[in-house]
Amino acid sequence: WARAVRGLLLDVSGVLYDSGGDGGVPIAGSVEAVRRIKASGLKLQFCTNETQATREKFVKKLQGLGFDISVAEVTAPAPAACRLLKERGLRPHLLVHNDLVPEFAEIDKANPNCVVIGDAAENFTYANLNEAFRVLIGMEKPVLISLGKGRYYKETDGLKLDVGAYMKALEYACDVEAEVVGKPAKMFFESALAEMGVPAEQAIMIGDDIVSDVGGAQQCGMRALQVRTGKYRPCDENHPQVKPDAYVNNLAEAVDIILQQL
Amino acid sequence: WARAVRGLLLDVSGVLYDSGGDGGVPIAGSVEAVRRIKASGLKLQFCTNETQATREKFVKKLQGLGFDISVAEVTAPAPAACRLLKERGLRPHLLVHNDLVPEFAEIDKANPNCVVIGDAAENFTYANLNEAFRVLIGMEKPVLISLGKGRYYKETDGLKLDVGAYMKALEYACDVEAEVVGKPAKMFFESALAEMGVPAEQAIMIGDDIVSDVGGAQQCGMRALQVRTGKYRPCDENHPQVKPDAYVNNLAEAVDIILQQL
Repeated sequence: WARAVRGLLLDVSGVLYDSGGDGGVPIAGSVEAVRRIKASGLKLQFCTNETQATREKFVKKLQGLGFDISVAEVTAPAPAACRLLKERGLRPHLLVHNDLVPEFAEIDKANPNCVVIGDAAENFTYANLNEAFRVLIGMEKPVLISLGKGRYYKETDGLKLDVGAYMKALEYACDVEAEVVGKPAKMFFESALAEMGVPAEQAIMIGDDIVSDVGGAQQCGMRALQVRTGKYRPCDENHPQVKPDAYVNNLAEAVDIILQQL
Repeated sequence: WARAVRGLLLDVSGVLYDSGGDGGVPIAGSVEAVRRIKASGLKLQFCTNETQATREKFVKKLQGLGFDISVAEVTAPAPAACRLLKERGLRPHLLVHNDLVPEFAEIDKANPNCVVIGDAAENFTYANLNEAFRVLIGMEKPVLISLGKGRYYKETDGLKLDVGAYMKALEYACDVEAEVVGKPAKMFFESALAEMGVPAEQAIMIGDDIVSDVGGAQQCGMRALQVRTGKYRPCDENHPQVKPDAYVNNLAEAVDIILQQL
């Protein structure tokens, strides 16, 4: 599986670091692994569903943890959502993390005709969920745009429900299907590949989420590895639908194997 | 549809009264309609998915609004859940309204091996949802019991997400299917019919929820009416799956028609 590779897509949380209220901690070997990928000449793009911060803030945090990463190397859902909103003349009611709001600064939000939901974390209050619900149910044809459909993720203080769970709550209440921007949407992986300028057959996705990372990338024709870090659980290895091209203990091990094949 | 009736099942919120933080207000004509049903000799049972209070407290509130109602006449999800927990030796982690907790006083809750979710309202905090999720995902085979699967309901200050939405969030996050106690579960309607001692063919359900009330009762072989009060919305009349035996403007009109046929 490690042959004929020209580019890597890396998930961030659970692969590079474990996030948490304290800013998070790097996963052993990952800082060095990113450096080795860049030194090898392989193309690299970070492909994240992170929606708790602007890309600028997100990148600063990762740089603070020692990672060699820049804003241009990050593919994230909020900018993709903004493109979609502009194309379709949609004015969002936002149910997102406070720190993500600046990504929507250019977007008209008066008299909303859709709801955009991200990983709002502490903003997932009973009041805010009811408010987003009322905006949706008040539309003739509710439009719900979700910045990902992750089930849960791991922070240093434990597992947390991800945006997908709250998306499902609103979908059920309003009897609609959300449009998902972010992994595992095909368009999202394709725009990350386009950023690298590498075709799917020559790219490998490395992630900790069996469905969003591995399943999504394989649907696009990429190879995909699951790391045994982050939200990985042993039962993922018996997943009924998705089978990674390989399991690796962590990013460092994946990079070892890939660089040996170059 | 009004012939050969011996018993009525009445939904409460949206049929008898509109609930709200202030205790709610009776729907015009409903207090008198309940009195007329009782005077007619028809059997009567109140069949509610109310899980924001013990039956005792719930009945007291309705009596305060002028309704002739007693605890024995109320079929509600929490006692049904307690029977199920005892039968199966389950120890619940509760995600319910504070005022419902006394219904579970007799139940062993140490070292939980299932999660029971009700309409927790203000208790649907980000922290409480994460906690219930962690209990579930920590089980080898997660068991989620839901006191209803309603999408939303109307209070005097607006529409609110109901337990079904939060149930869907946990179902998705844990990849499980909840066991629903309460409407529209068949067993729940059957126990209400048993309380009245009336067979399904001779009973009519009257409710404002097209799926939980009308669809659920029809699945049990009852006739079912939808009132145009409470959470009723005009688009319910084009529901793709469920067609009530009749629409009525309110409970009073339903009772007029039924009593004329006696």
